[in-house]
Amino acid sequence: MPERLPRQSEDFPAWYVEVVKQAGLAEHGYARGTQIIKAYGYALWENMQAALDRRFKATGHENLYFPLFIPQHMLEREAEHVEGFAPEVAVVTYGGGEELDEPLIVRPTSEAIIWSTYARWVQSYRDLPLLYNQWCNVVRWEMRTRLFLRTSEFLWQEGHTAHARAEEAREEALRMLEVYREVAEDELAIPVLTGRKSESEKFPGAVTTYAIEGLMRDGRALQCGTSHFLGQNFARAYDVRFLNAAGEQEYAWGTSWGFSTRMVGGVIMAHGDDAGLRLPPRIAPVQVVIVPIYRSDAERSEVLEAAARLHAALSGNGVRVRVDDRDQYRPGHKFNEWELKGVPIRIELGPRDVRADQAVVVPRAGGGKRPEATAAVIAGMAAWLEDVQRTLYREALDFREANTHEAPDLATMRDGIEGDGGLWVGPWCGDEECEHKVTEETRATIRVLPLDDDAAGTCVVCGRPATARAVWARAY
Amino acid sequence: MPERLPRQSEDFPAWYVEVVKQAGLAEHGYARGTQIIKAYGYALWENMQAALDRRFKATGHENLYFPLFIPQHMLEREAEHVEGFAPEVAVVTYGGGEELDEPLIVRPTSEAIIWSTYARWVQSYRDLPLLYNQWCNVVRWEMRTRLFLRTSEFLWQEGHTAHARAEEAREEALRMLEVYREVAEDELAIPVLTGRKSESEKFPGAVTTYAIEGLMRDGRALQCGTSHFLGQNFARAYDVRFLNAAGEQEYAWGTSWGFSTRMVGGVIMAHGDDAGLRLPPRIAPVQVVIVPIYRSDAERSEVLEAAARLHAALSGNGVRVRVDDRDQYRPGHKFNEWELKGVPIRIELGPRDVRADQAVVVPRAGGGKRPEATAAVIAGMAAWLEDVQRTLYREALDFREANTHEAPDLATMRDGIEGDGGLWVGPWCGDEECEHKVTEETRATIRVLPLDDDAAGTCVVCGRPATARAVWARAY
Repeated sequence: MPERLPRQSEDFPAWYVEVVKQAGLAEHGYARGTQIIKAYGYALWENMQAALDRRFKATGHENLYFPLFIPQHMLEREAEHVEGFAPEVAVVTYGGGEELDEPLIVRPTSEAIIWSTYARWVQSYRDLPLLYNQWCNVVRWEMRTRLFLRTSEFLWQEGHTAHARAEEAREEALRMLEVYREVAEDELAIPVLTGRKSESEKFPGAVTTYAIEGLMRDGRALQCGTSHFLGQNFARAYDVRFLNAAGEQEYAWGTSWGFSTRMVGGVIMAHGDDAGLRLPPRIAPVQVVIVPIYRSDAERSEVLEAAARLHAALSGNGVRVRVDDRDQYRPGHKFNEWELKGVPIRIELGPRDVRADQAVVVPRAGGGKRPEATAAVIAGMAAWLEDVQRTLYREALDFREANTHEAPDLATMRDGIEGDGGLWVGPWCGDEECEHKVTEETRATIRVLPLDDDAAGTCVVCGRPATARAVWARAY
Repeated sequence: MPERLPRQSEDFPAWYVEVVKQAGLAEHGYARGTQIIKAYGYALWENMQAALDRRFKATGHENLYFPLFIPQHMLEREAEHVEGFAPEVAVVTYGGGEELDEPLIVRPTSEAIIWSTYARWVQSYRDLPLLYNQWCNVVRWEMRTRLFLRTSEFLWQEGHTAHARAEEAREEALRMLEVYREVAEDELAIPVLTGRKSESEKFPGAVTTYAIEGLMRDGRALQCGTSHFLGQNFARAYDVRFLNAAGEQEYAWGTSWGFSTRMVGGVIMAHGDDAGLRLPPRIAPVQVVIVPIYRSDAERSEVLEAAARLHAALSGNGVRVRVDDRDQYRPGHKFNEWELKGVPIRIELGPRDVRADQAVVVPRAGGGKRPEATAAVIAGMAAWLEDVQRTLYREALDFREANTHEAPDLATMRDGIEGDGGLWVGPWCGDEECEHKVTEETRATIRVLPLDDDAAGTCVVCGRPATARAVWARAY
């Protein structure tokens, strides 16, 4: 029973909260900042997991599982890392009815425990590379919760690799960035910018943090996945050395990379409209819903029979399809509900359609409501779903292009960001002072420094020669 | 580089520890009782997950995710439940740098948090049934760790359903027991007994606990999965009421059911032999390994080319196959290593085989090492893998039958259990005193009370008329 949603243009945060609630994606948990991921939201995450996991395995990675609890002293060995995470950890002090000798940290990320272990697993260059990933929950204490986007506990995957050579590790970090880009664009239909983070935005303990960034429909950016080149930082902190082919001891080179349930929030905000979600077919839990329309009992059985036949045919073709045969709701109510839930294609089926051997096809994106012969519905569905997928990507790309601006100077940028937000691209000298000045004035941060951009021009803040072009935006 | 394993007959626990270590399945974590599940062990678990998840979905269940942290007061509402779990919980007392107002329990199981939530999700009989499952980690403090079998943190799935009628809930509990039986027998090749637990062995908060029990090769039983009929216990404790069709308020009826990474240990102990693991092909991470044999460089390239062709052909048929082309090890070393790792079928491929267009096929179970034409290897592999699957099941069933005994009296049972262990079946009066007497004298417990057995005869302890036939064994 969907209630009216707030309009995106009037109150985007309220729209988000209501869509998450009414579409049955998630709700708040009981402990501060936690969330309950409901079945519809979890199914979206499962489809993202499958898209990622397939690619991880195709690029030679194996899954494994490290413990949830990290002894406190273990987290403290990489200085930047502990400084970054110590303020937001949850700490176990009692176990089995007794106070523990050493407190246990509930993992905020697993570099510490994994590199402690790699120290035992790596002896020789023949043991390298280690190419591992784990799917798990992590905890980072949050005071201000936003379902999916910012929660104390979230689900993610974290890849952790170790290599014999620096270049090989850097290639790995970039390879996984490319996997993330592909999943974001091809599966989630979210166009993303790729690049590296500035020093002040990088992962605590990394040499370079690469990221993919998407633009949401309120003009704010969302970091969609990060891939870190760790250099030898964790190898030094946790003493991960190997004997190279020349018989010398060397520290290993590392990467880590993560993608989380936050991206369920990304899909909501990149594609949703005033009627609710619009889900990319490749990850939609339900790709097609058939809504039967009838008045009398005779019509009901006639229509439901036809719906069941169509369901079987589509399902047999690998389409995730559902018949909404609930008696207690009228068709109009169901249309609204499935629109809210973002199902890519709705099929309306009434007695006249059945007799004419047709159905009415209504795509959630791109328009084009029309009757189609039953045979065409069955034969054409895969292509029509791809149309919706392409439409969502195209619309998101058009939106990003319309909301990407050159920053001629700081004042213009401030006014623009204060207005409709969007991405602002401008030369930057590379100095943290200039970076902080922009953030103070605009509340925007550097989202990425694109890898292939040249550094022509002068810094929009200080006028000195630029060392990079920066993409600025307010971000989630 | 496998070292010699202890013989099972000499020291089964030492054999288990060494197999887990040498096969690369798991190792101890840093926090007490935790474990690191290594890639080969995790791949086994992934295959079990897929086998279960497919069946959960086919029986109408959806996955979702509830938080890791349960506020302490929430766990305390079902009296038996808190009594059962309170002594073994881990407690978070600090978060975000501050002491928490209320301690958070790291979930030992999720009935408390889920039924607290069902109270909000259930209003009317139309909201029922709720058929949900989650894949997650749970923590139960353990002082004595055994990798996979008994660890402070383990991975599992926990199903939690709510129903309008008692019979429907009981049917659900039995349906999921049947799913577990099917996965254990058809996928893990472990024959199991099904039945209910005695009052003293049931889940804290359940009305009836159903279980599947397997027999390990040292004569001890392993509980392989449990399914609980909760009655209205949790509905009353957490106030989960619904308006029935007659307009009256009723408490909902519940079930919960779980299957965990402990079953990786079950597979090791049900099938392993003195040479190491023997993995059922349906869940084996690697089903077929091709070991190339060569002396000269010319032979090497000839053999590796043929191995690659065979790999491609088998892989194209959906077989999980690997070529072991490591140069630093000799074939004999590789044979031992893959035997230790329990790969169902090994293929040996030397220059003479290549020239004769054949390969030597060596099944890990059932014998039958022989040369086969390459075409036969490709065409016959699926059936040969099924042969290994059937052989493992058959051997485990024969072993169980040979080690299942009628218990004429307590003394005979005690001597038998003290000797080779095994399952001892005897009439029981139903009295807890007699149950405890058996346990005191034999260290065996009632594993199951089979559902279809009649209760003829007299109690093996007190001689009063039996109310059930009990299956006794020492257990993990």
